[in-house]
Amino acid sequence: MAEPVFRHVALIGIGLIGSSLGHIMRQNGLAGHVSGFAKSSATRDKAIQLKIVDEIHDNAADAAKGADLIILCTPVGAFKVVAAEIGPVLKPGAIVTDVGSVKEAVVRDCAPFMPAGVHLIPGHPVAGTEQSGPESGFADLFDNRWVILTPPDDVDEAAFKSLVRFWEGCGSNVEIMTPDHHDLVLAITSHIPHLIAYNIVGTADDLEQVTRSEVIKYSAGGFRDFTRIAASDPTMWRDVFVHNKDAVLEMLGRFTEDLTDLQRAIRRGDADRLFEIFTKTRSIRRRIIDAGQETEAPDFGRHTTGSGSD
Amino acid sequence: MAEPVFRHVALIGIGLIGSSLGHIMRQNGLAGHVSGFAKSSATRDKAIQLKIVDEIHDNAADAAKGADLIILCTPVGAFKVVAAEIGPVLKPGAIVTDVGSVKEAVVRDCAPFMPAGVHLIPGHPVAGTEQSGPESGFADLFDNRWVILTPPDDVDEAAFKSLVRFWEGCGSNVEIMTPDHHDLVLAITSHIPHLIAYNIVGTADDLEQVTRSEVIKYSAGGFRDFTRIAASDPTMWRDVFVHNKDAVLEMLGRFTEDLTDLQRAIRRGDADRLFEIFTKTRSIRRRIIDAGQETEAPDFGRHTTGSGSD
Repeated sequence: MAEPVFRHVALIGIGLIGSSLGHIMRQNGLAGHVSGFAKSSATRDKAIQLKIVDEIHDNAADAAKGADLIILCTPVGAFKVVAAEIGPVLKPGAIVTDVGSVKEAVVRDCAPFMPAGVHLIPGHPVAGTEQSGPESGFADLFDNRWVILTPPDDVDEAAFKSLVRFWEGCGSNVEIMTPDHHDLVLAITSHIPHLIAYNIVGTADDLEQVTRSEVIKYSAGGFRDFTRIAASDPTMWRDVFVHNKDAVLEMLGRFTEDLTDLQRAIRRGDADRLFEIFTKTRSIRRRIIDAGQETEAPDFGRHTTGSGSD
Repeated sequence: MAEPVFRHVALIGIGLIGSSLGHIMRQNGLAGHVSGFAKSSATRDKAIQLKIVDEIHDNAADAAKGADLIILCTPVGAFKVVAAEIGPVLKPGAIVTDVGSVKEAVVRDCAPFMPAGVHLIPGHPVAGTEQSGPESGFADLFDNRWVILTPPDDVDEAAFKSLVRFWEGCGSNVEIMTPDHHDLVLAITSHIPHLIAYNIVGTADDLEQVTRSEVIKYSAGGFRDFTRIAASDPTMWRDVFVHNKDAVLEMLGRFTEDLTDLQRAIRRGDADRLFEIFTKTRSIRRRIIDAGQETEAPDFGRHTTGSGSD
């Protein structure tokens, strides 16, 4: 096994992403030592039992003390409090990064608490499942996924290179963006998809003309795919929408504008317009599959059901 | 193998559903003989080559002649023309059914062409993948899926029972509804999910602030799930929206009303309201999994990527 990228890594928060990082660090020898912080004692017990960390703490400062890399893995709504807690104990030269789904808010909330000589380099691995908690993590979550880093203009080159090496050691590809561009890109590729998935599941659950049992029985017609996304962690997603308000509202405006156009085509029975819209969306999926970000197998039938969907 | 349910079955249209029916009929011995109709010569060649049918025709009337069960498997927009073509050759006692995703329009388009003594019993297997064409079919597509039949009040009991036995022979569960209730249930469980998936993929493709290559690279954040649905057959879906206008517009109105409420909560930074909405959607997924209409494995990581997503 190669030399660890960091001597001591601290995981602040042990959910899906934190626990997956723990597994891949151990598997690939990326860290000499891993300390962790979790708010709940049940999570702390699991983190030790599943060997996600070497030592666990009930407060963030103790976990961060002496670490070379501190990774914030709590919901982004907790970052400000965590940054205030760990700021005083961070050692000079330490790197603070995170895995949050928004980036401008991270800089705004964390930067004021970083002492001189500490490098804040926000990050976001674009990977996840709809499950959460310390038991949901797995080592290859980041394999062939993109990690977006949003370093400041005057970032310390050596610190930045170490962080890139760390993520590449997790199997990821690294991309650089400004925080505001990140927030716009993720608003359309992740936040709005989650928002409309949550919304349609809520709508379906509230109807008086169609029963909940009918919604469940006939969910194979497309609805069930949205329930998977809408089963994602509510705390995490609440924080995303509170902290990426501007980009989400901008993209939501575009979405509803286009939806109104579709609605008008349906009301008018404009078959040609519908066909045109439904045709152009096929090619983009082809390109996602070609880019290795999706499998080709049809999954409406679900992969447990046999030959056609294997 | 048991006695076939029908001596002679005609498949009018050999796409995903038609070809899957051909495979399951052959596998389970549900039909003594299967004739087929496909518009394109390439599909006709495939239908013979893949043993989907025993004989193939280039017009619907020849395929339907002498059949005991005629299953319309073309896009619903073609049903009226097909019904007019096959009406004159249908034999007394024959059953005409279909697999279309809307049901009121089927009755309206087909009933006028049915001769006395022929039983029109519309149907809809709630099953499918995003793929289309004669090569996309597989025998267990209907296994443990629901088929909704919308028989008229005065349906012939023997004919109805035979059709139920046929679908049960395909592995399906049969449910009965009125055509208008079917159209409302499917609007929310299938048509609106497809509509908003098509819409967001279209929106993402049109942005000037975010490039297409960024959308593709970061699609693992949720967007790629929508591209699967939005890769479904454009002709089929054009016809669905043209033929289920009223129910779709009604459900779309509910969806946008709820989305406006969510938008307001985001604009106001109403974290409690967001958390409340995002929490209640989790339980409905649990019930879909319990009902056997979905698998539990997290699929954001995709099942090819390893341990956590197997």
